[in-house]
Amino acid sequence: MTQYLQRAEKIMARINELASISEDALGITRTFGTRQFMKGSKRVSSWMEQAELETRVDNIGNVRGRLVSNRPRAKTFVIASHIDTVINAGKFDGPMGVLMGLDLMEQLKQTKAALPFNIELIAFSDEEGVRFHTTYLGSKVAAGSFDESLLQRKDAAGVSLREAIQLINGNIKKLQEDAIAKEEWLGYFEIHIEQGPVLYELDIPVAVVTDIAGQNRVEIIFKGIAGHAGTIPMNKRADALCCAAEFILETEKLAHEHKDKIVATVGKLNIPNSASNVIPGEVVCTLDVRSASEEQLSFSCQSLRNICNEITEKRKMTFDWNLIQSTKPVACNKELSKTLAEAITASGYEVVNLVSGAGHDAVAISEVAPVSMLFVKCFKGISHNPLENVEIKDIAAAIKVSDNFIQHLINKHKN
Amino acid sequence: MTQYLQRAEKIMARINELASISEDALGITRTFGTRQFMKGSKRVSSWMEQAELETRVDNIGNVRGRLVSNRPRAKTFVIASHIDTVINAGKFDGPMGVLMGLDLMEQLKQTKAALPFNIELIAFSDEEGVRFHTTYLGSKVAAGSFDESLLQRKDAAGVSLREAIQLINGNIKKLQEDAIAKEEWLGYFEIHIEQGPVLYELDIPVAVVTDIAGQNRVEIIFKGIAGHAGTIPMNKRADALCCAAEFILETEKLAHEHKDKIVATVGKLNIPNSASNVIPGEVVCTLDVRSASEEQLSFSCQSLRNICNEITEKRKMTFDWNLIQSTKPVACNKELSKTLAEAITASGYEVVNLVSGAGHDAVAISEVAPVSMLFVKCFKGISHNPLENVEIKDIAAAIKVSDNFIQHLINKHKN
Repeated sequence: MTQYLQRAEKIMARINELASISEDALGITRTFGTRQFMKGSKRVSSWMEQAELETRVDNIGNVRGRLVSNRPRAKTFVIASHIDTVINAGKFDGPMGVLMGLDLMEQLKQTKAALPFNIELIAFSDEEGVRFHTTYLGSKVAAGSFDESLLQRKDAAGVSLREAIQLINGNIKKLQEDAIAKEEWLGYFEIHIEQGPVLYELDIPVAVVTDIAGQNRVEIIFKGIAGHAGTIPMNKRADALCCAAEFILETEKLAHEHKDKIVATVGKLNIPNSASNVIPGEVVCTLDVRSASEEQLSFSCQSLRNICNEITEKRKMTFDWNLIQSTKPVACNKELSKTLAEAITASGYEVVNLVSGAGHDAVAISEVAPVSMLFVKCFKGISHNPLENVEIKDIAAAIKVSDNFIQHLINKHKN
Repeated sequence: MTQYLQRAEKIMARINELASISEDALGITRTFGTRQFMKGSKRVSSWMEQAELETRVDNIGNVRGRLVSNRPRAKTFVIASHIDTVINAGKFDGPMGVLMGLDLMEQLKQTKAALPFNIELIAFSDEEGVRFHTTYLGSKVAAGSFDESLLQRKDAAGVSLREAIQLINGNIKKLQEDAIAKEEWLGYFEIHIEQGPVLYELDIPVAVVTDIAGQNRVEIIFKGIAGHAGTIPMNKRADALCCAAEFILETEKLAHEHKDKIVATVGKLNIPNSASNVIPGEVVCTLDVRSASEEQLSFSCQSLRNICNEITEKRKMTFDWNLIQSTKPVACNKELSKTLAEAITASGYEVVNLVSGAGHDAVAISEVAPVSMLFVKCFKGISHNPLENVEIKDIAAAIKVSDNFIQHLINKHKN
């Protein structure tokens, strides 16, 4: 295990070095296209060059390094994660996957492994979508699904995505050329922190991601009648907050009943013109439902909508149901996941299968390639927060597993 | 009834005239001490002078007009309400009581009634407390309970109450002199819109107020653990909003079970740092409980606090319970209320007894004098809103009742 611990120490040193490059002095913030983002990108690029990868920065700012196979018409296997962050982020979400990938590439280079396929390491430039409220800008360019209408979108300072790309020396006319053609993809592998508490509580270092949950986001407006909190008797009220409270508990109950299949959350709740002495006349809240099963997702949302109907009818109120966002679940490739599970077993760890409740670049890539993901245990499941932490020994375990996984893949494609 | 309808028309014309004096062009707003407030106050003062009352404006800006009895050491009976308003108010809350009182005084003057006691009409200058976040500035000066420490309090523009009083030509050193001494008070009578829907739904014009509810206002903070809405399984959550929702429904349930005795409302609810994809880690909300019974008020609040305890323990969370405000219930004087009920019967109306859930100047006066209140039916119970409305025929009914009431009082004290 010593060699993996040593490799993990080196990975951690790079994670810390990248984390020291930040838009705010005290925290970690590197959103797409900023000066500090570019500084971080250059650092990653220089590490890839040191590792003697065929290195380039593409037109959306993805940093890409290749190990090329001697075989004619060899396909490409991509190892990737992202290097942008949320505001006041942790240091592992994204960068850990990239820098573990870099370590895997260095290892292949050092061992002069004969590659039956090309391997490309990509540090995606924008997964979090903080600056332009987008999803997966970097991986969509690699997948060839970048939506050009987004170029007009502006950030909070009024800078358009078009301008932001030009400022990082990208050529918007060549974005399509940065895609890996569908027929060239062999597969995709992403290492990422779990962002949930399951591995932490099981005290197991890694897990196979079987699916990335689909998500429906709904805005619900409950409409009652505002009134004086002192003068309207209880039986003459149409209190929108009581109505919303009933819905929130029904949502919690339904999600508990299907707790292996869905999660559901009311995250925002606002009472317009609220006052302590006014009966709430209107409540605006959000509903976030996620599931690995498209059928379950659709069934749950329909059930909750029916519950809204029943509650508001009973209370003689009305409601609006506005679907804000809907993404389908993505299943990871069964064969790659099986190989990954075998690598976990071969490394001496118990195989845990998990659904990812958060989205990842693998979602964008899944449209063109078989995808696989390895989750790594993180402290209490905390992410998007400076408290985010991964232990050296768990990075070492994940490296051992990934080494085995890549070796399994190489062996499988040798003949 | 024709004479009462004619008097009601005149009262309504004055209500409309006073309502036309406003800080904002489209709505009705006259908060304490502003230029428009002063203009309104002068109008009321000139009407009192026209009615040949002994008229003066006191040092807190109350407009006061007296009919003086010939008897030596005669006590004083006060008829009053207020002429300040909330922001974007209706035109009846306050002014209606003052201008009906003016009509009663004019009637007594015209009929040259022999008065066994002095009668004083007071238009209180600040009941709503909008500008300085105070309660009952005007009536507290009349009751001799003005709190001088409030003089330092500042409005949103940084003007202190001391300065505001000086700007309306009040002398802060003489505020105490404006009090009616406790031994001089005979009683107090206030006519006010109900601000609730009971009379509107019964279609009865007036009601006797038996009590003014006491009120406890509490800020409750539920503390769970924030987390990613996609990655934390349902059984590992400490969702502060679900916890608050359970409390809100238990509050509604308890208030329904005691619906003749209390009303309870959660009016404000805020989730700090909320996002649709974040499990609420904290919820700050307000609880407003009102009752005519001090015992019931205290019992209800204690029950709700116990419920908070149970819910948070069950959910492994914690809560803070901060009592923000506590006012005791005030009982209207039984003898005056009996006389008022007799006047209602004599006028041909059914007697309805109501508890006032809102506070009134009668609360401040109750410390020094027996108080009585007459509620008048208003449209759907709506108040503090431009939709506030009272029909002419109901004003006529209230005038008839009040005429009878004052006559009953005069007769009672004749010998």
